[in-house]
Amino acid sequence: MTKLDLTIKISRKVGYYLMQYWGDTKEVKQKSSFSDLVTQHDKIAQKIIIDSIKNHFPNDGILAEEGVFENAENLWVIDPIDGTINYIHGLPNFAISIAYFERKKPVFGVVYSPVLNEMFVGIKNQGSYLNGEKLRIKSKTKLEETVGSVGFSNNFTGLFISKIENKVRRIRILGSAAISACYVGAGKFDFFISKNANPWDIAAAFLIVKEAEGKILNLSGNEPNPLEKGSFIFANPGISNKILEFTMI
Amino acid sequence: MTKLDLTIKISRKVGYYLMQYWGDTKEVKQKSSFSDLVTQHDKIAQKIIIDSIKNHFPNDGILAEEGVFENAENLWVIDPIDGTINYIHGLPNFAISIAYFERKKPVFGVVYSPVLNEMFVGIKNQGSYLNGEKLRIKSKTKLEETVGSVGFSNNFTGLFISKIENKVRRIRILGSAAISACYVGAGKFDFFISKNANPWDIAAAFLIVKEAEGKILNLSGNEPNPLEKGSFIFANPGISNKILEFTMI
Repeated sequence: MTKLDLTIKISRKVGYYLMQYWGDTKEVKQKSSFSDLVTQHDKIAQKIIIDSIKNHFPNDGILAEEGVFENAENLWVIDPIDGTINYIHGLPNFAISIAYFERKKPVFGVVYSPVLNEMFVGIKNQGSYLNGEKLRIKSKTKLEETVGSVGFSNNFTGLFISKIENKVRRIRILGSAAISACYVGAGKFDFFISKNANPWDIAAAFLIVKEAEGKILNLSGNEPNPLEKGSFIFANPGISNKILEFTMI
Repeated sequence: MTKLDLTIKISRKVGYYLMQYWGDTKEVKQKSSFSDLVTQHDKIAQKIIIDSIKNHFPNDGILAEEGVFENAENLWVIDPIDGTINYIHGLPNFAISIAYFERKKPVFGVVYSPVLNEMFVGIKNQGSYLNGEKLRIKSKTKLEETVGSVGFSNNFTGLFISKIENKVRRIRILGSAAISACYVGAGKFDFFISKNANPWDIAAAFLIVKEAEGKILNLSGNEPNPLEKGSFIFANPGISNKILEFTMI
């Protein structure tokens, strides 16, 4: 089994595991604050993923949300539940995000939304796919024809919406960075902004958007490194610079 | 067939019709502005609904988003697609919303989200249901444990988020008032605010939330009339007054 095939298989398996307890979690725990939560299911899902990878590829390294970091040339970057708060509240937008890097370069990324049964796959130099269908962003240049998305981030989201509200068709807040970014790759959103994202939030979506010919910028207008914490603008290439301007708050 | 059974049947039928063209619409037209759109599918879906009602109940009146208003003691309030922009962009949150009133009082409401296969039903004095399962909101009193939602509304949404962002767990913007309100009834959201809603946006969800023991307020803190255009706060009863305060902008 290839590493990509294994990843798709684990993602579906973890999806089935998680659906059992969607909106019905016990033992929710606070991490850094009342708005940063983890459940036993994040931890079990992460263990299912890591055990399976280690079983097949024992020498590979792991960087995972729930406290694992083993550096190595072959590195897996894992978020067992991107959108934990949606998961706890029974809201549809949460995903399993798994990316694979060799020498710090993305090789493939998989984002799977079990409620919506959306499997996003991006493969270096081979394109991006949603449930097997190839994705390619059609360039847009008119802001007023765009629908975009933004993460919920203090001292940013409200201000950004106030600034851009008259210029775009709509803004959404879904609560899963991985899904929101993949929706840019799929042309469902024209942009998505994630402030202070961690590598596990966006590492898989990064390649999915890039291979769909989306533009990815940091707030300085350069392409960010998906292995470093930072702010990410995922956008239709025809409007990425305009969106960048609106992030200057 | 009862009026409610007919409504559930039409909703599913229109759901199948709409899924054929989800994210793949032609002939999108502007209504009042670049952010107010309609497709031929809104119109055809509305016609399917109205023809079916008229076929069974020819003397009933209709109030529908795409330009129909025939007043009568028995009144159907119809939104063929709540969330048209999501529908056009291939985003999951859109719904068929059908409410039935007698002498201006709600008798039942049905909101159906075809992508998620969520059928919400509220029946006067008989409760609310999501896919047949009875809904009843469990009261919460701590704002910091809430996840809420707000419609995308100029000069409000960004300001509201800036004001409340440190007090709640998360804010979402889904882009369908009907679904967002029903999610309050289902306990997935703890509140949803819709500014300047039209009756067809919220008439069905109104009874669904009320029968689930949710609180519904206008911005003056009174229960609004679902047949009149206005602003609606749908909320967990334990926090509704706190949310009301944050809407004073």
